[in-house]
Amino acid sequence: MSEVAASIEGVPGFKVAGVSADLKGNGALDFALIVSDRPCTAAAVFTTNTVKAAPVLYDMEVLANNNNHIRAVAVNTKCANACTGEQGIANAKQTAQLTAEALGVGVDEVFVMSTGVIGTQLPMEKIAQGVHRAADSLDESNWFAASEAIMTTDTRPKRAFVKVTTADGKQYHVAGMSKGAGMIAPNMATMLGFIVTDAALDPQQAGDTLFASVQTTFNQIVVDGDTSTNDSVFLLANGASGVTIDDAGREQFSIALTSVCRKLAQDVVRDGEGATKFITLHVNGAPDDAAARTIANTIGTSPLVKTAFYGGDANWGRIVAAAGRSGIDLDSQKLKLWFAADENSEKLLLFSDGMPTNYDEAQATALVKAPEVVVTLDCGQGGGTATIWTCDLSHDYVSINGHYRT
Amino acid sequence: MSEVAASIEGVPGFKVAGVSADLKGNGALDFALIVSDRPCTAAAVFTTNTVKAAPVLYDMEVLANNNNHIRAVAVNTKCANACTGEQGIANAKQTAQLTAEALGVGVDEVFVMSTGVIGTQLPMEKIAQGVHRAADSLDESNWFAASEAIMTTDTRPKRAFVKVTTADGKQYHVAGMSKGAGMIAPNMATMLGFIVTDAALDPQQAGDTLFASVQTTFNQIVVDGDTSTNDSVFLLANGASGVTIDDAGREQFSIALTSVCRKLAQDVVRDGEGATKFITLHVNGAPDDAAARTIANTIGTSPLVKTAFYGGDANWGRIVAAAGRSGIDLDSQKLKLWFAADENSEKLLLFSDGMPTNYDEAQATALVKAPEVVVTLDCGQGGGTATIWTCDLSHDYVSINGHYRT
Repeated sequence: MSEVAASIEGVPGFKVAGVSADLKGNGALDFALIVSDRPCTAAAVFTTNTVKAAPVLYDMEVLANNNNHIRAVAVNTKCANACTGEQGIANAKQTAQLTAEALGVGVDEVFVMSTGVIGTQLPMEKIAQGVHRAADSLDESNWFAASEAIMTTDTRPKRAFVKVTTADGKQYHVAGMSKGAGMIAPNMATMLGFIVTDAALDPQQAGDTLFASVQTTFNQIVVDGDTSTNDSVFLLANGASGVTIDDAGREQFSIALTSVCRKLAQDVVRDGEGATKFITLHVNGAPDDAAARTIANTIGTSPLVKTAFYGGDANWGRIVAAAGRSGIDLDSQKLKLWFAADENSEKLLLFSDGMPTNYDEAQATALVKAPEVVVTLDCGQGGGTATIWTCDLSHDYVSINGHYRT
Repeated sequence: MSEVAASIEGVPGFKVAGVSADLKGNGALDFALIVSDRPCTAAAVFTTNTVKAAPVLYDMEVLANNNNHIRAVAVNTKCANACTGEQGIANAKQTAQLTAEALGVGVDEVFVMSTGVIGTQLPMEKIAQGVHRAADSLDESNWFAASEAIMTTDTRPKRAFVKVTTADGKQYHVAGMSKGAGMIAPNMATMLGFIVTDAALDPQQAGDTLFASVQTTFNQIVVDGDTSTNDSVFLLANGASGVTIDDAGREQFSIALTSVCRKLAQDVVRDGEGATKFITLHVNGAPDDAAARTIANTIGTSPLVKTAFYGGDANWGRIVAAAGRSGIDLDSQKLKLWFAADENSEKLLLFSDGMPTNYDEAQATALVKAPEVVVTLDCGQGGGTATIWTCDLSHDYVSINGHYRT
């Protein structure tokens, strides 16, 4: 497998487009299409928020009826089409119909997705315009525009691409793009992600591998703890490479898919609203994995922990306090907490036996002031582990979200 | 019962002091004493954080052995004496010993409490100095200084005072002070609160009424969702008024105590770190009260909801989205959401039947831009209700917490 690249050279059989449908009102790209020239196996993971956006509800039904001949995904930004009632569902369906007509495919072969402000209806005239403009500009190499066209408060597009050479010398590709910077929390299918491959998979394989990859990638990130109404990750496999993923090739495909998902997920955190810092948080020695995840999420969403990182303050006490309020029964005497520059560097032990070690404050501060830091908490209780990737909470987060709609 | 006042005239038998022990290093008041001239019945509610500060652990033991002849509470700021191991417990005990000696009471008759930075040891020479200075300046009317001396990032002291006239014409008082602005979350004994009364209560009464009052006051506030390691609320009752709270007088006492707790709790939210807005959040129609509380807490700690209020943006979609991710199974078609200027004003319905109503955006914005707003969410499912008081998330919150230790 090649290194994970940010630039997508193209995936045989797939064309994409990113255009302006004038939704953002400033000429910026805001409407994207992903189209396969042949039917795709499809899988998707959707938000666990009980308040689901209209396109999520619509796509869940499409997927239930058709997981092996999907042809296209249409995505708009600016309006999330969430909390929009029956009209919202009708608008999602009409978007699929417009797309199907423009492409000459079946309406049941099209997914739609929306992201942006909650509680406004899609402007259907502009959407129709977007569909036609996008259909006219479809191209194998248009991934940069497509990944730009799905951005909301994102500051940069997020793409990932790998080439895989199979044991018998054949080649296939896995490419993906994602968007997301705020309303990001783990434990669901986070934000929007679109992944395509020219390998052939059966629907069961596609669903299983996507679900597994999402667990350790998209579901391991948190920006602000707010789970969106629209979070969705899609996988489309069109088989154009001639490679069919059988039992022997499954692990290799899973590794490739997970690599693409991991880069897209980490890119969301790196582009977290107002983020200045990328924080990897490992929790080990918890009673079980679920407990470790709960502790990690509590730390990763703590405003006090996140602002301390923003301020470059090695205020480890807030991390220990957050773990203590996680609802998991911990013994503070058994906790150990380390900071490190990266996964491979020596770790600096800050807290052990219920009290601070004689660590060098200047060294701790230097680690926290760096743009990336690895935090490891050992609970000293069992074998439960979890990792999450998160970011700090800055003035800019407040600025961005104090005035998002206006 | 008199109106709840912020100024404490004095409570017979109690003297207090607030002095500088040079802990803050700028001459500010940072050490307080509350002393009764006779033994008190005592009750306390402590943090549910499993990482408990040394003074919490120490006081829990004191209270277990003595709930009917407590004489004093000594409180320092700047250092929380949390995550400080055996040395921290020894320092808590030494603080009690120094206080007992200075006052001529038993060491088992003294509570101690600390608040401030986690993970540093108490500077015991300065603490000793503080004990002596405070003992020398004890006075019935020193409540303003005492309430200032327990502040950390608080911008103003928080006091509450009521006079109660019993059915047979006798009078007693309930007075309290609190501190807290950050690391504030409900569902525990939040922040520090010290309440005294010259009524006589037995320990069971004291504990029961304090616990009940805290449930609907201190446990109903949230600033940032971070439960502290040091949260504690104490009640001391010395009987100096000659009034003994019997079954007939219990409801009256409970109302007085709850009124004092409510003011102290709401003052913490009004003084929330960086807060510009006081938000009352009612959740009704939930499956049960616990579910309503979960939904309210999820909304009240959502960074996206809190920044929208800060920005004066009537972004109700974030409130609905937060409810949807609370873990409680909700039907978005049944949700109703209102904003109102206060508890008695007409409510503006924003969301109903799964979509926005035709509300007047200017009216919604005006409600959200006001310094106080009442939000009501009806889940349309059952009889569960909850109320919390919370505040917005501002640039100043980030500034305050990015640089708290340094």
